[in-house]
Amino acid sequence: MKKLLIIAVCLLAGVAAQAQQALGPGTGIVSPEINPDHSVTFRFRAPKAVRVQLSGDCFSAGRVDMQEGRDGIWTYTTEPLEGELYSYSIIMDGTKVMDPSNVYQNRDVATWTNIFTLSAKQGDKGWYYEVHDVPHGSVSHVWYDSPTLGAKRRLSVYTPAGYEDNPKAKYPVFYLLHGSGGDEDAWLDLGRTAQIMDNLIAEGKAKPMIVVMPNGVYFNQAGPGAAINMFQPTMANSRSQSTEEFELAFPDIMNFVESHYKVAKGQYNTAVAGLSMGGRQSSALIRRYPTKIGYVGQFSGVVVPDGDDDPALKAVFAAKPKLFYIAVGSADGVKVNSMALKEYCDKKGYPVEYYESDGGHIWRNWRVYLTQFAQKIFK
Amino acid sequence: MKKLLIIAVCLLAGVAAQAQQALGPGTGIVSPEINPDHSVTFRFRAPKAVRVQLSGDCFSAGRVDMQEGRDGIWTYTTEPLEGELYSYSIIMDGTKVMDPSNVYQNRDVATWTNIFTLSAKQGDKGWYYEVHDVPHGSVSHVWYDSPTLGAKRRLSVYTPAGYEDNPKAKYPVFYLLHGSGGDEDAWLDLGRTAQIMDNLIAEGKAKPMIVVMPNGVYFNQAGPGAAINMFQPTMANSRSQSTEEFELAFPDIMNFVESHYKVAKGQYNTAVAGLSMGGRQSSALIRRYPTKIGYVGQFSGVVVPDGDDDPALKAVFAAKPKLFYIAVGSADGVKVNSMALKEYCDKKGYPVEYYESDGGHIWRNWRVYLTQFAQKIFK
Repeated sequence: MKKLLIIAVCLLAGVAAQAQQALGPGTGIVSPEINPDHSVTFRFRAPKAVRVQLSGDCFSAGRVDMQEGRDGIWTYTTEPLEGELYSYSIIMDGTKVMDPSNVYQNRDVATWTNIFTLSAKQGDKGWYYEVHDVPHGSVSHVWYDSPTLGAKRRLSVYTPAGYEDNPKAKYPVFYLLHGSGGDEDAWLDLGRTAQIMDNLIAEGKAKPMIVVMPNGVYFNQAGPGAAINMFQPTMANSRSQSTEEFELAFPDIMNFVESHYKVAKGQYNTAVAGLSMGGRQSSALIRRYPTKIGYVGQFSGVVVPDGDDDPALKAVFAAKPKLFYIAVGSADGVKVNSMALKEYCDKKGYPVEYYESDGGHIWRNWRVYLTQFAQKIFK
Repeated sequence: MKKLLIIAVCLLAGVAAQAQQALGPGTGIVSPEINPDHSVTFRFRAPKAVRVQLSGDCFSAGRVDMQEGRDGIWTYTTEPLEGELYSYSIIMDGTKVMDPSNVYQNRDVATWTNIFTLSAKQGDKGWYYEVHDVPHGSVSHVWYDSPTLGAKRRLSVYTPAGYEDNPKAKYPVFYLLHGSGGDEDAWLDLGRTAQIMDNLIAEGKAKPMIVVMPNGVYFNQAGPGAAINMFQPTMANSRSQSTEEFELAFPDIMNFVESHYKVAKGQYNTAVAGLSMGGRQSSALIRRYPTKIGYVGQFSGVVVPDGDDDPALKAVFAAKPKLFYIAVGSADGVKVNSMALKEYCDKKGYPVEYYESDGGHIWRNWRVYLTQFAQKIFK
């Protein structure tokens, strides 16, 4: 390379002159900045703005005012925060703008927000959501045929580190289902599934396993960008509340996974969990296929027993699942459902694990439930 | 499922009450809307704004004014557009805001913009960037060890439809390199590589092949979100202009790919192309490993011959590459470099293919060059 004459000045000048996309030098501002005491400072340049606020789950008041400096840069510093994946938006004179100094964003259904992770100490929640110097699994986006739905459909698959290097090893499979309005990317982007699994497996806290994240909205083939049509995801769609088609087509997914991956088959090598609508689906799946699933998780699930003597639940527990896990937030509107299910199972002598966290119907809780559930299965 | 008592009212009420993320009913506006004549209408609700503009590559003037309606909704309709992947932003009273009615966005280095695809007729450029009802390949994000760089590094791999179902088939490999400030996601997100390859292969215009998209910034292990540290990508980094480390470590990538995928090895089963910095890298790679690479593409590349008698280029052509492809935009600042290389090769009798498009140093061109190049290799 030394002998190559590279017209570097020309290159840089040319790039700058011709750039029509994204080639600027950045904002020159660091935002967010995580301080040594784990407080976080946000900065935003807006010399003409009258009021700039921050909205998000890292502000105790929900929305806070930024203070303008002489240079037109508005700032706000939080209290020291615990480890977490936080979301926030900037509200400038009433309008939401993305933080131009922070490329980290994610999309929940149809809403984009800026995000950042913070880890106050090793092993806290935020630590599990970050990438560490541990062996990393692979994440694949693959398509399978669903004869039942008459469609090609997309799903995401996490395979653990070493999967490709052990041709004879077989792995248990964890099917992980998103909520209403979500898609096959939701658990990866919002749930940080790959990072959680990498870290738990590296610590020996979870077994190496395959995690399959299908698209649970039966009439969508794939999430935005990977689908044939352009569409705006929404929760306000009564069709998306119907999960029966997904349940009936679930064997198509299992058949694909078992024929394309190195799968340890059987009830006690199969787990299903999901959040909200996905919790409803996991509940329905174990009722429909009780001898196929050994571990089930309802994260903010809504399914309650069918009357005083639910025959499907009786069949579920007759098939002796090793784990029936129910988790919900104390402020979640569906807590009443989760409690009803737990109390019914207690009364009938069905063994369930019940976990109640703070907070509501939010990803902050679902990441915690995933971190717990993944440590309890295939053991 | 029919027998399950699902408290749907409770569910919906609970979700709405507890939602802290992204659970709104949407904006109630369609934007962008692609009209039957392939004009595009944008809509944005901002009753208090004084001026709302659109900026992007679908507006002939670069920036255009939206018109306010009585309902506080601003609109703008373009002329009929040709098929393309377009980017745009809304500028409200001087501030960039994302279109809240459009979840489709992508990130170029550190800048997010809204995007949409439009296909005016089958086979136009936009058509290749969209998802059609054809067999889909898989996209995987995997990690490999680079002993040369002493790091685990992430790369993206496209495998064509049918790859998993043909255990004995072997596939040629196309290494596709991003530009300065990019990462292993750039060609997938901005380049629509998976869609272009799916469509070309389905039409029989490209051979089924593996496309490997490494991270070409040698000091980054991965792009934002997959890397250990949080960082703001930038082009303004002189270290990122050094490509020698990447070239020296390139055999680590080839070794990983050849040991983990069903690879047809050898010079004429190996192609390398890249844009801008990646074009520089492809040029350097074929100079360094002339007998390993049978097809090379420089998309908006900058490398010119080393004097009047460049021994490395002589060795390159002595190794008889089947394709030496140079493509650049007529308004690209680096066109002078591409022309100098082409003229040198012509003078020496080295066979090169030269393609000059309209426009500058932009993804709109690089997608076209990829579409062309992929049809010319492994044949």
